Order: sequence, then structure tokens, then C-alpha cells
Amino acid sequence: MASLKVYGKTYSTNVTRVLTTLAEKNVDDYQMVPIDLLTGANKTPEYLKLQPFGQIPAFQDGDFTLYESRAIARYISDKYEGQGTALSGNTEREKALVNQWLEVESQNYNPCAGKIVFECVFAQILAGRPTDEAVVKEQLEKLEKILDVYEARLTHHKYLAGDFFSLADLAHIPVTNNLINVAKKGELFSSRKHLNAWWEDISSRPSWQKVLQIIQAGQQQK
Amino acid sequence: MASLKVYGKTYSTNVTRVLTTLAEKNVDDYQMVPIDLLTGANKTPEYLKLQPFGQIPAFQDGDFTLYESRAIARYISDKYEGQGTALSGNTEREKALVNQWLEVESQNYNPCAGKIVFECVFAQILAGRPTDEAVVKEQLEKLEKILDVYEARLTHHKYLAGDFFSLADLAHIPVTNNLINVAKKGELFSSRKHLNAWWEDISSRPSWQKVLQIIQAGQQQK
Repeated sequence: MASLKVYGKTYSTNVTRVLTTLAEKNVDDYQMVPIDLLTGANKTPEYLKLQPFGQIPAFQDGDFTLYESRAIARYISDKYEGQGTALSGNTEREKALVNQWLEVESQNYNPCAGKIVFECVFAQILAGRPTDEAVVKEQLEKLEKILDVYEARLTHHKYLAGDFFSLADLAHIPVTNNLINVAKKGELFSSRKHLNAWWEDISSRPSWQKVLQIIQAGQQQK
Repeated sequence: MASLKVYGKTYSTNVTRVLTTLAEKNVDDYQMVPIDLLTGANKTPEYLKLQPFGQIPAFQDGDFTLYESRAIARYISDKYEGQGTALSGNTEREKALVNQWLEVESQNYNPCAGKIVFECVFAQILAGRPTDEAVVKEQLEKLEKILDVYEARLTHHKYLAGDFFSLADLAHIPVTNNLINVAKKGELFSSRKHLNAWWEDISSRPSWQKVLQIIQAGQQQK
């Protein structure tokens, strides 16, 4: 039995954020426990003991339970410090910039990108209504301005926190994949040279390619 | 000249989150640089060099610039590790739980509490429109459920990440002060015994009392 468990389904970008972190750290020995929001498995008393807000993912390392994908990612990065890719920065300042860009991702980028993906892809399936085009337009305008800042940053540095790949870049991959490849908003990236090069770079990493295979395998099981 | 600078105004809970962290670490030697959203000072080319999204706060430590309040709080906690209150947890697991509850604060709690405060207090001043009561009702319902989880957690532990005060508790103080003392939603807390005791405890800490004085001094300068 693997001592590490990831609870959730791979359609969740919060779940695949954790899986990508595990892949970067070369941690293969974990068990996926399928908790499907669509069947209400996230609201059972048993699951709510692990994740009292009924969200996915939850994570277990032996008898230690943790939730919130970015907190889990930090934990994995720290616990497996000596193997795989160093993801948290080396110096005090590098660490601070990784934290800064993780916050930018969670506070600025992800809310916009997530709303666009939801409206364009999931509104009909999950909310039983058509895409709200006004929301898409509003969020695209916000996201364009955010991505202008990213473009400027990535003109001077190869990655967000500096010239090293980190949790801050990694955290963007799952929702960006949906934005570009599912919601078909790739123009946001292809129109910005350095942003596009960054996306080509981080999305071609073996970690994400491996997670894509896990996602596809999950889809075929349905 | 202080080598630490905090850019922003104390009406921002993101700014006072940073000031509370400095107070817990007994760091007094910093300069407040007033960047007022109401005058557009956050959109000048000079400020956008520090904080390209035009948000407050920004923070400087000598030649090092950092933004996003929770990233700044983490940086201050790490840099002044040897003085004031230990805020980040000692063990790997404690650190992970501090990170988890910081994410709960930023992803679950703050969006709800912030929207309620905005609607009840700032909608007229900042958006020139009356309170949207439907938004208040919706967010209060969400927040009630979130606070039920907090109550359960605080029944078994004195603080969110365990039996030690941490950045996770601290991060809640500014917006909760607005929620209770400005938007007058104290009933959310007084109706939950352990949550209420937690709030009485963390809001009476010398750090927050000091920041309240700084906020009041700022209001009198207007």
C-alpha cells in the first residue's frame, strides 16, 4: 500500500497541480482515490473528515492529512527536497518570489482563467446553462492585462520567479492547458512572444506530459 | 532612512496584514509610503515598476521588491525568524498546516468576507451604488458554512494550524475586524463559541492593537 494518497479526479486542475508536483519530484509511489464531485462523493461524512469543505484534492501521507493544492504542492516540494526538480527557490529572496508568483497565480490569474474555462467548457455540463458571453468578455479583458504583466516579466526572466523553473510556473500549467487546449483561447498566448515561449517550455516538461497521460487514461475509463 | 518600506494605505486589509506581521516580529523600523487607490497613485508609471498589477501593498527591503501580502508576510516571518513570535510552524507538518490554512483564508474565507464588507460598507463610496443585498445574502450563506468548519476545527485546537498562533490566524485579522466592527456582522462569530473565543484572542494581541492605532492615526490625518 502506498503511504501517499491523492483524493480527487483528474478533471480538477487543483488535483493535477498536485500530480504535476509529484511528477517533478519523481514520486511515483502514490495512490489515486477517486472522489468524484459529479456523484457527490466529496460530500460523504467519510470524505468530509479528510476535507471538511468538501473540495478536492485531499492528500494523505501516512496519518497526516492535508488539503489545498498549493499547500500540498509546497509540502511535497519540501519533503522531497533532495530529489527531482528543486521547486521552491534556494535563497530567501528566491523563495519569496516563488511565493509571490504563487499568490499572483491564485489571486489574479487562476480566477480569470478558471471563469473563462468554466463558461466556455463547463457551464452547460455542470450548470445546465449556455455560456455567459458577458462574463467571458469581462474576464478576457482582465486576463489580457494580467498577461501583459507576465509578458514583461518573461521578457527579462526565463521563468516567473527568476531564471529557474519553480512551483510558481508549475501551478499555472493545469488551468492554462484547459484555457488553450479545451477553451481554445490560445491566441492569448500566441500573441505574446515570451509568454508563448514560456508556455511551450513548461507544458512540454516530462512532468506535465506524464500527467496528461494520466488524465487521458482516466477519461478512457469512463 | 528605514531600509524596509510598505507602500499602500491602511484602509487596505492587504496592507494591514503586512503591518500586523511586522508588529508580531517586533519590527518597528519601517517606512509607510502612502499609495492611495482613491487618487490613482497606484497607477503611476513609478509605482507600476514596483507593483505591475497596480495593487497595494508593495514592499521593499533595500533593493529587493516584493508584493502580494501573504508572500510578504511569509518573507518577514522567515527573515526575522529569531525574533518576535514564531509564525510559520516548527515541523514540516506544522508548516504544511500553516500553509493549508493560509490557503483556506485566501481562497475560501477572504473572498466571502471581503465581498460582504465591500457591499455593506464600500459599495456606495467606491462604486457609487447601494448595497446589493442579494450578494450579501449569498455570501453570508457561504460564509456561515465556512465558519461551521472553523468552529469544528477550533473546538479541537486553539488556533487554525494547531495549538500555536501563526500566519494563518494572523492573515484573518484585518478583514474579520472589518466584518465585525465595520460591517457589523459580529453575530457570525458570537453565535459560535470557539470561533468567538479565537477572535477575542487573536484580535486582542498587542500586534493588532498596535495596527489599529496606526489605522486610527491615518484616519485622523485625512
